[in-house]
Amino acid sequence: MEEKIATLGMLMVPHFSVSLDEVRLKTGKVSRRLRIDHPKAVAIVPVMEDRQIVMVRQFRYAVGKETLEVPAGKVDKGESVESAVRRELMEETGYQAGKLTRLLSYCPAIAYSNEVIEIFAVTNLEKAGQPLDIDEISSVEIKPLSELIDMISSGEIVDGKTIISLLIIEKWFQSGKLRP
Amino acid sequence: MEEKIATLGMLMVPHFSVSLDEVRLKTGKVSRRLRIDHPKAVAIVPVMEDRQIVMVRQFRYAVGKETLEVPAGKVDKGESVESAVRRELMEETGYQAGKLTRLLSYCPAIAYSNEVIEIFAVTNLEKAGQPLDIDEISSVEIKPLSELIDMISSGEIVDGKTIISLLIIEKWFQSGKLRP
Repeated sequence: MEEKIATLGMLMVPHFSVSLDEVRLKTGKVSRRLRIDHPKAVAIVPVMEDRQIVMVRQFRYAVGKETLEVPAGKVDKGESVESAVRRELMEETGYQAGKLTRLLSYCPAIAYSNEVIEIFAVTNLEKAGQPLDIDEISSVEIKPLSELIDMISSGEIVDGKTIISLLIIEKWFQSGKLRP
Repeated sequence: MEEKIATLGMLMVPHFSVSLDEVRLKTGKVSRRLRIDHPKAVAIVPVMEDRQIVMVRQFRYAVGKETLEVPAGKVDKGESVESAVRRELMEETGYQAGKLTRLLSYCPAIAYSNEVIEIFAVTNLEKAGQPLDIDEISSVEIKPLSELIDMISSGEIVDGKTIISLLIIEKWFQSGKLRP
């Protein structure tokens, strides 16, 4: 157990906040902990025929470059996780989600953030329009899963939620738990 | 490209900082971005005989509970990545690292942090003493990789770097790239 003594500082961002807390560790020692209070998020593996995956390329300010990722986003206040999957997929790729299969939930940055990302596979996709989120998304790219797995090994794909999503869906295919 | 207009606020923590920036998006729209400036980190998969893995249990303030994870930590200023692996492994588990094999580098929270975690497998371990990091580590637990993989599916293991480390080392074993 680590117990909060005081909040030393705070930053407020739309949808989430960052606190710097003084805490007492289990040994009694006093230390400081950063804590991002983050809403739940979803990551989406949109699966087409022949294990082709719909990916998005976007600029990431924190690392200063464009990266190739699975579609993802925050769950809005009052929104269900399933609705967030359908909304984010449509906004980022222009595809309408058919069947949703929950793969996994995990904490991406447990040392300083309470963010939980819930990963879904989406099958029976239907092209419904153009991506709406032109502020964020540079391009939509459809690639075979095998090529994407190679891009993890080669270091071309660096985003954590994308790596977990692709490795897990590969396991689901191998075990026969998911049949596209 | 997203261009910084101004820094609106900042929090300083020992070893890293958080900025709230006003930025101009590629479409010209003005928005806000959180950016954690984080030092490089290492995650370690300590492999013993019969694919047993040395894990650590620790309290995580951001999520308010204890979690089972691979040993990990920040690379100190002026320290090599390899030295950080040997130091963190010793501090958190009391094991001395033998051979290091680099598995992967990735960004755990690309939407708001520039943190890069470099994952290493460590073989030829030698027990050299007790864990030193009693402020952080509650227990050291040695478990078969197959059991840990099951704990990912069941939701008992939720930490992102641990999930990626275990899935990648399983792939390396399966492909014969790593032989313990």
